Formats: sequence, C-alpha cells, structure tokens
Amino acid sequence: MAEVAMTPVEGGVTAAKGFRAHGVSCGLKERDVASKDIGLLWSEVPCETACVFTKNEIKGMPVRFDIARCGNRIQAVIANSGIANCLTGEQGEKDCAEMASLTEGFLKLSEGSVMVASTGLIGKKLIMDRVRYGIEKVCNVIKNESLPNHFCDAIHTTDMKRKHFAVEFTLGGKRVVIGATAKGSGMIKPDLGLPHATMLVFIGTDAAIAKPMLEAALLEAVELSFNRISVDNDTSTNDSVFLLANGKAENTLVTEKNSDWETFRAALTHVCQEIGKLIVKDGEGATKITHLIVKGALTDTDAKRAARAIADSFLVKTAMYGQSPNWGRILAALGYSGAKFELPRVKLFFNDLCLFENGDVIRGSEGRANAELIGSELRLTIDLGLGRKEYFLWTSDLSVNYVKINANYMN
Amino acid sequence: MAEVAMTPVEGGVTAAKGFRAHGVSCGLKERDVASKDIGLLWSEVPCETACVFTKNEIKGMPVRFDIARCGNRIQAVIANSGIANCLTGEQGEKDCAEMASLTEGFLKLSEGSVMVASTGLIGKKLIMDRVRYGIEKVCNVIKNESLPNHFCDAIHTTDMKRKHFAVEFTLGGKRVVIGATAKGSGMIKPDLGLPHATMLVFIGTDAAIAKPMLEAALLEAVELSFNRISVDNDTSTNDSVFLLANGKAENTLVTEKNSDWETFRAALTHVCQEIGKLIVKDGEGATKITHLIVKGALTDTDAKRAARAIADSFLVKTAMYGQSPNWGRILAALGYSGAKFELPRVKLFFNDLCLFENGDVIRGSEGRANAELIGSELRLTIDLGLGRKEYFLWTSDLSVNYVKINANYMN
Repeated sequence: MAEVAMTPVEGGVTAAKGFRAHGVSCGLKERDVASKDIGLLWSEVPCETACVFTKNEIKGMPVRFDIARCGNRIQAVIANSGIANCLTGEQGEKDCAEMASLTEGFLKLSEGSVMVASTGLIGKKLIMDRVRYGIEKVCNVIKNESLPNHFCDAIHTTDMKRKHFAVEFTLGGKRVVIGATAKGSGMIKPDLGLPHATMLVFIGTDAAIAKPMLEAALLEAVELSFNRISVDNDTSTNDSVFLLANGKAENTLVTEKNSDWETFRAALTHVCQEIGKLIVKDGEGATKITHLIVKGALTDTDAKRAARAIADSFLVKTAMYGQSPNWGRILAALGYSGAKFELPRVKLFFNDLCLFENGDVIRGSEGRANAELIGSELRLTIDLGLGRKEYFLWTSDLSVNYVKINANYMN
Repeated sequence: MAEVAMTPVEGGVTAAKGFRAHGVSCGLKERDVASKDIGLLWSEVPCETACVFTKNEIKGMPVRFDIARCGNRIQAVIANSGIANCLTGEQGEKDCAEMASLTEGFLKLSEGSVMVASTGLIGKKLIMDRVRYGIEKVCNVIKNESLPNHFCDAIHTTDMKRKHFAVEFTLGGKRVVIGATAKGSGMIKPDLGLPHATMLVFIGTDAAIAKPMLEAALLEAVELSFNRISVDNDTSTNDSVFLLANGKAENTLVTEKNSDWETFRAALTHVCQEIGKLIVKDGEGATKITHLIVKGALTDTDAKRAARAIADSFLVKTAMYGQSPNWGRILAALGYSGAKFELPRVKLFFNDLCLFENGDVIRGSEGRANAELIGSELRLTIDLGLGRKEYFLWTSDLSVNYVKINANYMN
C-alpha cells in the first residue's frame, strides 16, 4: 500500500470540513435514563456514500432500511443506543422509517437522504414517543452546535472509552481530512463486509471522490481493519460502517484508481485500523490487545484459519488475561484450526522472545516470557515455516469483567 | 435405537466383572503435591479394545502412542494428571513408552498390552522419577484393592465432581455391565471422533463382543454423546475414550450387527450420554446445563450448524449464566450460523414456554421466562419450521469462575 504522509487531527467524525455531530438524551437506556442515546451526524451538503453492513442473516431494521438507500446521496445519519430495533417485526420497520423521515423533516433534507443506526438490546421495540422527542431536540441543537463527544456518548452501549480518530493529508494539492467516530466493545467478530459488536462506525471525509471509488476504498480498508479484530465469537445483527464524502476539500474528483485513489485508500485504511484497535482495546472487560501474526503459511487460507482459531480461543484469551505464558494452548488452537503445518518447523514468539522451535520449548524462555506479558499490548507471532503467506488480527483478552458485563446486560 | 431395559449400578469403570482401578499420589501437581495423580485401570484378562482420540493435529504423546497400539488386546491403562505430556519432543515420547513398559513389568503383562493417558499442562515434561515411583505404587496396591474413586481423583485436573456411571442389562440371557469413569471439565468441544477437554473416558464392560462390533458401537455412541457437548471452543490435544471388553459375562460372542449388538450399542450410548452430561455439568465454573434442540431444519447440516453456533456463543452462554432471557442473542447466533431459515417460521422455547413466533416476541413471555431460567437445567428448543431434521447438544454456561479458573491455570 502507498506510503502517505498523514497527521492526526482532532474532531473525530467532524474533523473534515462541513460535518457536524451531536447527541442528546431521550430516556431509552433503562439503567440511566439521563445518559445520551440519540446521536446525529450531519453534512452541510449531500454526500457520496459507501456503507458496509453485517452479514448476519438476522439484520436489524436500520440495516435493512439503509441497504435500500445505499444508492442515494446521504446527508445525515440518525442513531440511537439502548435498543437495537432488531427482531421487532412490522412495528420495528415503521419506527425505523419514521426516525429517518422525522430527521429529514426537522433538517429540511430531501427524502431518502437520511440513514438510521441503532444499537442496544435485541428484540425490544423502540419507545417512539421518547425517540421523537430526542430527534427533534438533536436536530435543533445541531443547527448551532457540533459536539462530537456528545455524538459519541449517544451511540455508546457497554463502551467505556470514546473512540475518535482523524487524519489530514494532501490529495491533488489540497488538504483533505478523513475522520471517524465509533462505538463497539462486545459481540465483536468480523465476518465479511463486517465485524460484529454491534459496531457502528461513522466516517466523514471532505474528499471529492466518485461513489464507485469510495466503495472500493472502503471494502479494502474494512478487510484490513474491522475484519481483523476479535473480541468474542458473536456476529452482531446491526453492525454498520458509514462513509460519507462531501467534496468540501475541492480536490480534483477521484474517478479512477490513480495515485490519488491509492493515497485516499491508504489514509482510509489507517483511520479504520486505528479505530479498530480502539474497539479491541475497549473490548468488554479487556485488559490487553494482542497483535497476532501468523506467517510462513503455505496459503492465505491456512494463515487466516490459524490466526482466527488462536484469536478466538477461550483458553488463549483467558491465558492472556491471566498474563500466563501458556504457549501450549496457542499451539493446541493451531492444531485444531485446520491450517497445514509441521510442528518441527513452527516457531512461536511473544514480542521478540522465541518460546518454541524445533518441536520443543526453548529452555528458560517461559521464565523470561512473564516480562513480555505484563502491560496492555503484546505481539504474538507464529511462524509456520512452510511458505510465504501471512495474516494478522488484533484480539482482546477474556476477563472476569467480560462475563459480568454480559451476564446481566438485560437487567 | 433399540429400547433396552437397563438398571444403573455402582462402581463406574469397575462395575463390570474382572475390572479393577486405583489411584495414588506421586507429586505431579504443583498446587497440591499430595493429591492423587497416577491412576491405573486393569482387567483380569486381555480385552478387545476400541478407542477414539482427539482430531487435533497436535496430539499428546500418549495419544500417538496409543494409536500405534489400537490393534492390540489391551489389559491395562496407566494414566496421570497434572502434566499432559504434549509438545514435549523426543523426551516426551520416551517417557510415554516407559510408563507403559513399567506397568507391563510390575503387573507381568505381555508387551504391548498397556495404553497410556495423560492430562494437565501442555508443554511441560513429565517428572519421571516421581512417575516411576507412582507407577510402582499403584501397580502394587491394585493387586489387593480396587477403589474407583481413587482412580477418578487421580485423573482429575480442574474437575470438581467425580464422574462415574454404569448400567446392567441382559445380553443373550446373561447379565452384562457397562461402566465408565471420566474426567473433563474445561476445553470441551467435541469434533469428530472426539470431544475436547482434555476429556478422558474409561469404559469397561464384561460383554463378549468382537473388536469390529465394539468399534462400530463406540463410534455411534460417541457421535450421540461426547460429540454433542460444548463447554468452550477449544479442542484438546489429549482427548481419549478407551473401551475395554473382557468377555467375563460369558454371553454369546457378538460378531455381527444382530439384535444383541443393537442392545449393546443402545446401552453403551446411554452410558456415554450420561457421562457426557456429567462432564457438561462439571464444566469449568458451570452453573447450568442447557439441552439445546434445533428441529424443523431442512438438512442435517443446517440443524447442526444452528445448534453449534448457539451452543458456542459467548453471549448466549453468559446470558444463561446470568439467567437472563436474552432470546435475541440466540436468534442472532442462528443468524450467523449459516443455517437456512426463514424468520417468520422460527419458534423459540425455554422448556415448554414459547417466546418467539411469527417473527416477533410473544407479549408477556419474557416476564414468564425468568421462572424457566432458574435452576440448573434448561431445555432450549429452536424450531425452524422448514423441514424434519434435528440436532441436539448439551452446553454449559459461561461464568465468572470459568475465567478465573483458566486465567491462572499455569500458576
């Protein structure tokens, strides 16, 4: 991928020209009715838009609604937390359409230019009198004010930390910004066009770029970012990534896969990777992020299978939580992954420390491994020593708090 | 399957005529060096033997050793806990062979008639001076005494409860017994010829049955029992099921798939299912066993995929632990399972209480669901309403204690 000079900037999804975001409270979260739960992202002008959504066969009503609008130029996304509006039947469909329609009305946007996002409890219906109040309120405040932190808070469920990231770079001689704000911490396992959390990612850019080029860049960026993270094994019904490009940077419109497109794609991938890592670090109860690299595989499939089996293993995740150098569990997961390997060729590293090679543990390495496991980040490399294919993933650990958070989520 | 009149009897793996079992301590378990860790199962006479072993590509040394002896008539199995003797290189191979050879020597058994089983930490080498001492001790005591509880304790790792089950029934006019003793509580996910725990199952029967018939019965019994349990997603390197038949019941030798074989198979399946359920109930930190039934599927594959995705979901397991009627997570897991379904036809039941049908939750059912979730057992049925295929699984919940147990297992 192209090397691009980029500088991080503040502002998350509102960092690019012409975007505003805000959030208010309307009482959807039972545990704390005063917390924010209605968020709005708005662009001064309609945007070229690319989206990816969950591959789960059961899709939340907003996902179904947005898929039907994927051909449109989008100007705003109205989001709520607390209730996922999924498995809610005909009433859920109507509620979702009403959320978009109300937003279009209050902001005087053209019909079909608003998308919807919801996250929270599955199976519960929206409390629409509260939602209507919230949408009116957020549409009013956004006219005068943009507070991306309030937007971020309004899309949180079990999130502990705000997840913003933005960069500026040069595209065709113009300063261009890509900014993102996201939620997601549990139920995270990418699959396809998408990870699973419910993960909601809102990306705004002022780049001028044609829709097919925007879509191509997003698909590649997602494959190298949100599809490379693992918190648990579950695939959400509501995962969505929204990428809105409003053209305010006034660069020469990108209409083909030229060097400008390469630059845009590289910057977008970087933003998505940084947001993806923030999601893993904020994984429900997570205490450590592991950058897992499987290399030396014969095929791409082998590399991916091995990485996925290790990253998703309950036992590897609990060992990471316990800071326990239980490398045997890692190789056991490799063993059932289905990936082709020959044990005498396999090497295993914690950061730069080799623990296993030539079919045996390296004497004394376990004692030294403890030092590598302290702290909140680990690079875990498994070199299969057979070929040249690689795959990487970022994975969280599995902690006591994960269970506590999820055991009582409905109450 | 044939309906067979059976009566439970005491004694576990020693319930059938001619079997003895015992266990001693030799100091292999770091946390409690006084706890039992060397177990011996012995038959008065050599046995027709059938085994199934883990499908993990990384196999413990005992599994590799036993596979090479699968053609032999087996008279004893020497087992240890604390150390799995897996990923231990050439030294591990030699140690395993020495365990068998010492047992043959002390008990004056013919060469090749002893199998080996190990469970515990992966990657650590056996402390052979202690193991030698333990084998001599257990071989001496078993000459005068049989204590299946001591055998059971000697194969335990994180197990909390003893797992014995045995039945008597009539075969060709003779009283026949099948008895089993097992260990296994974490790292349990069957796949193939085998579940994963490390699960070790020792089954002794006095039936007279030819080896091919014994093997056929075991494969079918395993598919309907140990392959139907789920504690976590991990597949152990050392899983083994040993079935020894010594012929002491003096029934007419079973040499074909006649009605006697059907009777034997049904009784064996029952024993394996009861042992399988005991393993799930003793799942690491488990507080609840869920009997998950997917029915109305178009194909066997659909039924199995749906059941497996739901049973293995972190979020479903934590909801069960929290006694939370979070049926949305169950349907979300169905959604990413890959099974074919149409939501308006799906019905979901907790015991006999229907929560979801016609694409929507049944009003008021969630309130009533709480009562169904109290207690240590739940029957969870998902009727896809499309076809006639079914699949069932027994699954444990995911508790705070699971994480605590596994985070610190090495220490």
